Amino acid sequence: MKVILARDLQAASERVAEANRNRFRQHGVLAINLMGSPGAGKTALLEATLPRLHPRYGCTVVEGDIATTRDGERIAALGVPVVQLNTGGACHLDPAMVARALEELPGGGRLLFVENVGNLVCPAEVDIGTDRTVVVFSVTEGPDKPEKYPLAFSRADAVVLSKVDLLPHLDLRREDFLDVLGRCAPAAAVFPVSARTGEGVDAWCAWIEAQVTNQYSHPPGEG
Amino acid sequence: MKVILARDLQAASERVAEANRNRFRQHGVLAINLMGSPGAGKTALLEATLPRLHPRYGCTVVEGDIATTRDGERIAALGVPVVQLNTGGACHLDPAMVARALEELPGGGRLLFVENVGNLVCPAEVDIGTDRTVVVFSVTEGPDKPEKYPLAFSRADAVVLSKVDLLPHLDLRREDFLDVLGRCAPAAAVFPVSARTGEGVDAWCAWIEAQVTNQYSHPPGEG
Repeated sequence: MKVILARDLQAASERVAEANRNRFRQHGVLAINLMGSPGAGKTALLEATLPRLHPRYGCTVVEGDIATTRDGERIAALGVPVVQLNTGGACHLDPAMVARALEELPGGGRLLFVENVGNLVCPAEVDIGTDRTVVVFSVTEGPDKPEKYPLAFSRADAVVLSKVDLLPHLDLRREDFLDVLGRCAPAAAVFPVSARTGEGVDAWCAWIEAQVTNQYSHPPGEG
Repeated sequence: MKVILARDLQAASERVAEANRNRFRQHGVLAINLMGSPGAGKTALLEATLPRLHPRYGCTVVEGDIATTRDGERIAALGVPVVQLNTGGACHLDPAMVARALEELPGGGRLLFVENVGNLVCPAEVDIGTDRTVVVFSVTEGPDKPEKYPLAFSRADAVVLSKVDLLPHLDLRREDFLDVLGRCAPAAAVFPVSARTGEGVDAWCAWIEAQVTNQYSHPPGEG
């Protein structure tokens, strides 16, 4: 009997992630993995982001959810190509799911957003082959969360602090969030954003544009 | 070489859960598994609940977190016996972790609250031996979440709809939440609550008291 150990499965997953990453390189695509708690505002952030970046870069989206096609429908309503992945019960996306979704998306775009399953724990453990990891973290979750869920924040290239329009109604100060993010996500660019009012969306979009430029300042294949 | 299959591990986990359940029965304890997203307000709910129920029932608490002892400290500050479980990275509590915590808690109480790791997905899949399952779900997460994370809601005995004091500042109506909970958590009692203002805490505490009464209307061991 052949026994496949966990480390072999892990290596197989990493190979698929690497294949995704190579595919992005070959096509000059910057792929961003968006993760965060349920209701952190990941889809609302995309709704604020895509109308600005899609005309210039050509965006595509992979929506990961355990169930329903609601998020996919919200993206499709913007005229952006989207694939809805329903995991059935799985608590995070894996690279093979993303690879399967890529088969269904049109080529030619420069930006791919992968919205992971709403979960601040498990998606952070899995490399799906994306180039940047972004945590969406709402002020209503409270400033203790980066210390309580350290992995996602420690690996983030950027943190979008969402729903900042609600700060006046909470017993919390913006500085409390920025302080803890400085400690727990020291490598991350931090963007206070309200998808509802539009606050901070310009700076967040400018960061994404800079990532595309950084990634592909040399022609694809040489960079 | 002995190979232990997933179903054997599952059965072993279920035996430990059953042992926890028997222990609760023998001691006349009602055990409640509190689950919800990070920042849903689980600890704040306990802070509003324990001062009312601890004097009458004798409460103990198990706090599950990936990292930090913050939540345990908040409970200890109320004078309620608490054990902080740090899972290291695990995304949910398992019954053996709970069994280990029970060894550290004093006897004599009638109510045990187990605050699971903040995660709306994985904790719902694992029976830890508690008598009731309660989902804490904040209005800031949005009314689509029960359909997107169906398992936790479908198994809930009660749903605490938290942070209702923020509803006037959101583009959402209380009825939207109650409608979706009626569909996705048909067996659950639903309690709109604000731990900040105290709204709804009486009804929630009355439900808990009724659960103790229902569970132990007969003397422990006969019921």
